[in-house]
Amino acid sequence: MRIITLALLGSALCSGQGTNECKPSQLNIPGAQYPCVYPDGRARFRLAAPEAQKVQVRIVGQGFDMTKGDDGAWTVTTTPLVVGFHYYTLVVDGARVADPSSRTFFGSGWENSGIEVPEPPEVDYYLAKDVPHGQVSQRWYYSKVTGKWRRCYVYTPPDYDAGKARYPVLYLMHGWGEDETGWHRQGHVDLILDNLIAVKKARPMLIVMDNLNAVKPGEDGTIFTSMGRLPPRPAAGTGAAAGAARSGGLASFTEATFTEMMLTDLIPMIERTYRTLPGRENRAMAGLSMGGMQTFLTTLANLDKFAYIGGFSGSTGGRGGFDVKTSHNGVMADPEAFNKKVKVLFLGIGSMEGPGTKNFSEQLTKAGIKNVYFESPGTAHEWLTWRRCLNDFAPRLFQK
Amino acid sequence: MRIITLALLGSALCSGQGTNECKPSQLNIPGAQYPCVYPDGRARFRLAAPEAQKVQVRIVGQGFDMTKGDDGAWTVTTTPLVVGFHYYTLVVDGARVADPSSRTFFGSGWENSGIEVPEPPEVDYYLAKDVPHGQVSQRWYYSKVTGKWRRCYVYTPPDYDAGKARYPVLYLMHGWGEDETGWHRQGHVDLILDNLIAVKKARPMLIVMDNLNAVKPGEDGTIFTSMGRLPPRPAAGTGAAAGAARSGGLASFTEATFTEMMLTDLIPMIERTYRTLPGRENRAMAGLSMGGMQTFLTTLANLDKFAYIGGFSGSTGGRGGFDVKTSHNGVMADPEAFNKKVKVLFLGIGSMEGPGTKNFSEQLTKAGIKNVYFESPGTAHEWLTWRRCLNDFAPRLFQK
Repeated sequence: MRIITLALLGSALCSGQGTNECKPSQLNIPGAQYPCVYPDGRARFRLAAPEAQKVQVRIVGQGFDMTKGDDGAWTVTTTPLVVGFHYYTLVVDGARVADPSSRTFFGSGWENSGIEVPEPPEVDYYLAKDVPHGQVSQRWYYSKVTGKWRRCYVYTPPDYDAGKARYPVLYLMHGWGEDETGWHRQGHVDLILDNLIAVKKARPMLIVMDNLNAVKPGEDGTIFTSMGRLPPRPAAGTGAAAGAARSGGLASFTEATFTEMMLTDLIPMIERTYRTLPGRENRAMAGLSMGGMQTFLTTLANLDKFAYIGGFSGSTGGRGGFDVKTSHNGVMADPEAFNKKVKVLFLGIGSMEGPGTKNFSEQLTKAGIKNVYFESPGTAHEWLTWRRCLNDFAPRLFQK
Repeated sequence: MRIITLALLGSALCSGQGTNECKPSQLNIPGAQYPCVYPDGRARFRLAAPEAQKVQVRIVGQGFDMTKGDDGAWTVTTTPLVVGFHYYTLVVDGARVADPSSRTFFGSGWENSGIEVPEPPEVDYYLAKDVPHGQVSQRWYYSKVTGKWRRCYVYTPPDYDAGKARYPVLYLMHGWGEDETGWHRQGHVDLILDNLIAVKKARPMLIVMDNLNAVKPGEDGTIFTSMGRLPPRPAAGTGAAAGAARSGGLASFTEATFTEMMLTDLIPMIERTYRTLPGRENRAMAGLSMGGMQTFLTTLANLDKFAYIGGFSGSTGGRGGFDVKTSHNGVMADPEAFNKKVKVLFLGIGSMEGPGTKNFSEQLTKAGIKNVYFESPGTAHEWLTWRRCLNDFAPRLFQK
């Protein structure tokens, strides 16, 4: 009798968590019902693949085998997923492909699928609201350093077009395997700033989003892969294209060339093209993950040009351990002088990413280096962490 | 003896057309060597799918079965493809997916793969050149008509930011299954205009690219599918979402609602936000395929608001045949008055698309309606036709 009761209860539970409760992901193509997300964060995926032998979805480091139904469609419901934006991939008989039901997002070096496990509805800092809206513009420019045309995106605040004011500038970098589209497509940078500016929490500013790729003609870039950092190619290589090919389509750059390109080409182009405020106190740089590492390398070597520094999941003290006297060519050796120069040194991280950044922040504090430690509760190495970082970081910028 | 000679010759030809001659498509993700395109237009595709039973590439209406190699990768070389941009799809054991080696482009209602079979190198009207560059900006706005936030992209010419001048505006529409990103991603609208403006062939203008999707709350939109136009849903439907779901993720709109949205929300937002020139003689509308049909419906019903009209592969006289006296509510019944009002009526088409547009143009001419017929040589119903249409159409706009 108890067994029957449980069976009925089970059936009732199933119907209570039926398809109606599974809401299509906000990142689906128009009209697609799958993938959908249950209120508890489980996601249900579906792919029509009538002749496949094995189909799997890979998301947040896990694989979920899908099951074939009578209609030839494969489905699976995952365990609860952490809140936020996640890249995910389908594997169809060994082929790694994007889900055709999803919008695609450039990540891990290719056009990956994405799913949004939504925050509670009251969390709306990155949603479109009835406030004045700025815009994100695609800008082409020629780099003398790399000898190539480059593309960046520029956020201009709501009052930029109508007014004559000049603005400070934040240079904001993507992470490994991503590109200059990440911050507005995955990160909602424009909506976050629109919302902050509307309630006067952040100063109106420009935000410039460029691409880490930067090698000089003939130069072989360092390749970052999911396995870590590979050394520069030997001289026998055929340049950036060969390097990128070896890594399966990832960024090819050297840190020094990126910095040189930024100082020689990008910043002058921005300051020539837009109404910007001059000087280091009107320039900030931040980035996520690999872009955070680049931020530290660029800014700490050029404190005459930047007064605000942000690392989002990209700051654990650098390679080979941190030493206040010697790290970054000793730029922090005199903490008082450093604190006077650097108006904000921001270290953000998701709480599920481990203690490295917190330890680094405490090391800095102990050494007398002022810094802001921000921890995003319950999130991992993904875009919800970085949206929250930006939302906390932007209001700290360019305050006199 | 003759047979042996031919065999040797064949072998020599094969080695002459080896992998070195197959250049990676410009639309590949960084570093991807495949797909690549041979000088004669054949394309070679490659997909790693070690456990698949059958893999096919579908492109320009044809299917090419791929062959599995010892390394688990499937490859095929197609027959020569027509020049231009083509969507293409891989079918892996029955699953229709995008090629992970390609950038994705919103077409046919999803994030499809694309390949560019390049024009000869001397054809550079849509390439980035060393000329002043305008920008393409993402703009959010709220529509009172649909009750939803909408996104459009706006091209502003090179001198817009630095100057104070006011500009005329071209409203430029995508086609079936595409969206507001098509004209700058697939169409290179910004580079085409930059290049035209640099040599003073076109007047500097704004170009607004919106999305055909537009239904009022509770309204059931007409669905266009690859099989043609479906009638509006019966009242029992649950609105746009259900309609779109039925069609597999395609545009849901009614022509009248799109026009109302455009006149009520879009045009006033643009003219409020940007430095535009007022009046019908400073407004043009054009579109490709379904967007061309919408252009005719919107402009011919509102000649007090538009003086320039362009249909790119979207103009064969409308449904049910053309009659100069009665079509479009008789707006052409007085050809002389119509010719005076409409400064340019442009009908573009690819030469491989059939004679419908040419016949329509001749019908118009015979009826006394001035029009421009433009035929793109050797191209089909795809983006190279439409880039060429724009390149021919834009210089004709807003000339006093």
